[in-house]
Amino acid sequence: MQVSEDRLRSDIEANAAFGSVAVEKGHSRTVLTGTEADRNAREYFCERLRDAGLTVRIDRVGNIVGRWTPESADPDAAPVAAGSHLDSVPEGGIFDGPLGVYAALESVRAMQDSRIEPTRPVDVVCFTEEEGQRFDGGLLGSAVAAGEMAPETALSLEDDAGVTLESALDDIGFRGDGRVAADEWHAWLELHIEQSERLEAADVPAGVVTTITGLSRCAVGITGEANHAGSTLMPDRSDALAASSEFVLDIETAADVETDSDTAVATVGKLDVRPNAPNVIPGRVELSLDVRDIEQESIEHVIDRARTSLDRIETERPVTAEFERPWNRHPVPMSERCRTALCAAGDDAGIETLELHSGAAHDTMHVANVTDAGLLFAPSRDGISHNPLEWTDWDDCAAATQVLGGALKQLACE
Amino acid sequence: MQVSEDRLRSDIEANAAFGSVAVEKGHSRTVLTGTEADRNAREYFCERLRDAGLTVRIDRVGNIVGRWTPESADPDAAPVAAGSHLDSVPEGGIFDGPLGVYAALESVRAMQDSRIEPTRPVDVVCFTEEEGQRFDGGLLGSAVAAGEMAPETALSLEDDAGVTLESALDDIGFRGDGRVAADEWHAWLELHIEQSERLEAADVPAGVVTTITGLSRCAVGITGEANHAGSTLMPDRSDALAASSEFVLDIETAADVETDSDTAVATVGKLDVRPNAPNVIPGRVELSLDVRDIEQESIEHVIDRARTSLDRIETERPVTAEFERPWNRHPVPMSERCRTALCAAGDDAGIETLELHSGAAHDTMHVANVTDAGLLFAPSRDGISHNPLEWTDWDDCAAATQVLGGALKQLACE
Repeated sequence: MQVSEDRLRSDIEANAAFGSVAVEKGHSRTVLTGTEADRNAREYFCERLRDAGLTVRIDRVGNIVGRWTPESADPDAAPVAAGSHLDSVPEGGIFDGPLGVYAALESVRAMQDSRIEPTRPVDVVCFTEEEGQRFDGGLLGSAVAAGEMAPETALSLEDDAGVTLESALDDIGFRGDGRVAADEWHAWLELHIEQSERLEAADVPAGVVTTITGLSRCAVGITGEANHAGSTLMPDRSDALAASSEFVLDIETAADVETDSDTAVATVGKLDVRPNAPNVIPGRVELSLDVRDIEQESIEHVIDRARTSLDRIETERPVTAEFERPWNRHPVPMSERCRTALCAAGDDAGIETLELHSGAAHDTMHVANVTDAGLLFAPSRDGISHNPLEWTDWDDCAAATQVLGGALKQLACE
Repeated sequence: MQVSEDRLRSDIEANAAFGSVAVEKGHSRTVLTGTEADRNAREYFCERLRDAGLTVRIDRVGNIVGRWTPESADPDAAPVAAGSHLDSVPEGGIFDGPLGVYAALESVRAMQDSRIEPTRPVDVVCFTEEEGQRFDGGLLGSAVAAGEMAPETALSLEDDAGVTLESALDDIGFRGDGRVAADEWHAWLELHIEQSERLEAADVPAGVVTTITGLSRCAVGITGEANHAGSTLMPDRSDALAASSEFVLDIETAADVETDSDTAVATVGKLDVRPNAPNVIPGRVELSLDVRDIEQESIEHVIDRARTSLDRIETERPVTAEFERPWNRHPVPMSERCRTALCAAGDDAGIETLELHSGAAHDTMHVANVTDAGLLFAPSRDGISHNPLEWTDWDDCAAATQVLGGALKQLACE
């Protein structure tokens, strides 16, 4: 059984056209859930699923599943599933998500070409709103599929403009019926780009993940007083941006210097200033805090440090601060059975694999809570992701897909 | 001669409806140049000018002049002018600008009521884009009127979306002909809210300005590398927001602690993060720096400090920085003749006045370069401005307008 690099590349390149952003260097796209770009990417994907003879189903939150039920399979057997997501961050790259979606489809096509006779159906999956750019903290579709979030809750989420996920999915014609249920899967595999440099440094095309990092996402608000930049003397100011700047630097130090863990990371990625005008002292800043590690202990240290930083800032400056932690997900180990299948598939195909942890959250985190799950990485050039310079060589894409397909075949024939 | 508080209040309240923003406390409006709110505010103003028998003229950059030429006046004599602006910062207050525009009109109406017979025409003026929120660093219309900026240059300025001032003015029907020329005025007066607490503290309703603060406006860009917040380890990051946070704090220290001047202020009021997503390390930050003082020396100190701060940050972090200083305006003293007329008008009306400097830039800065100019302040409650809580008591508005009107009468009868 051999996957086709050409078919895979053609699909990923076609998908890259949806929401594409003109950039000087690299390749970029912005595909937010429920936008025109998202509709186009989804429609193309459904077309490719049908071209391969798969039966397409859309669930209530827009998760897409293409099912291959070969004659050899018991249609009532628990299916084996693989996939990822098609949405992106603003001005993101073309591999983060689509590689895993189209690699799963290509694995099925390769099995079909080689007349593999699985005993189980195979599901090719695209989860909704993995990046959490418009409606949520992320991994939304898989949270619903894993039963961690009620479909009603997901559908009622609103974007910054007050549009609900329900109405956004209606707009693009992708609000379907029922719920894709991850606990009904025999096993789940996801191929994703590594978004780090370990595979590249080791010159290995496929990484088998041992543990997915824990992740806390926090929302911080700092309120000062908006006032005229010219006529408010320095001692009379209550500048929400200066206060926030102290917080940003405290967080950086907490993650970089203070924890014992080399893998702990903390990021203020989003920061909005109000009213955001050159001649007005900032009266309000809202910012995000993202903290991750494979050890929960160091995550807790950074979160504690964030709270004490805000306490200190409130004492030293005439501002008030709010802190919320709506998201706290502990590190998730991958299933032994899936890891073994992936390593074995590498060995079978003569493709070297490397065991490593994932610093990024993935839909597989949710799925792993309800069935056996495995996560496979392909190399990222210079570790760059969420950026137009995100890149994975096509032969590496194909090699990792070959490993995915081999493992999927083994699990589907169990 | 007596100005009418009721007429003045009615105009300012009517104007406050254009671009009004619902707020929990106070009164707020957002009137950016060339928007629907701006069109409505301008149309209402022109209507009020015509109601008072003034001849309305719109120049190429949208400056509005209502001219009163009483029978007593030589129509060819250099007119006396007064006014301010109708645009606002986002979510600004209702007095900053409109008070001066409608006080000038009310002064004319009071002269008409009292059958004052000026020997010169009187111009009531609204300058375009004083706040510089959409097209420029600010004071745009007065820069053109004072011959400091060519109308073509102004018209070709673009907002963040690439819309030119020319097309924005066309959209609202306020791109006229010719150029209002401030050097043709015999004298100019502007009434504005103080935006500081000195008048309130002294319980004096009118402040005669001695000097307008110098102002440097700078644009800073810091470029790091956008990357995945989960899989990029702390030592491998190039975080443009963390770098910018150091800059914000350095600037605050420079203005607050390092200069010898008590009046030096520096503000980072606008800061935009790209891509501004919770799970992406900020790759680029663009921010504004606004530095003011009545002494040029301390402005230069803060600007030097900004440059050395960026140099240090570039040395210590893997980021690059750009620094531009498109705006550098030295402190501007007010004309002795206008100051005297304002103080005398206060004395005549039995209204106490106080001499003070202006920490804020005003259109009068430009006009003062080409003719005699004076600036008058009304008290701001708690010094708050550029904020929904901006407030001036109606009796203070009327008292300051009485002083403005008295001085205008004197200058118009010279």
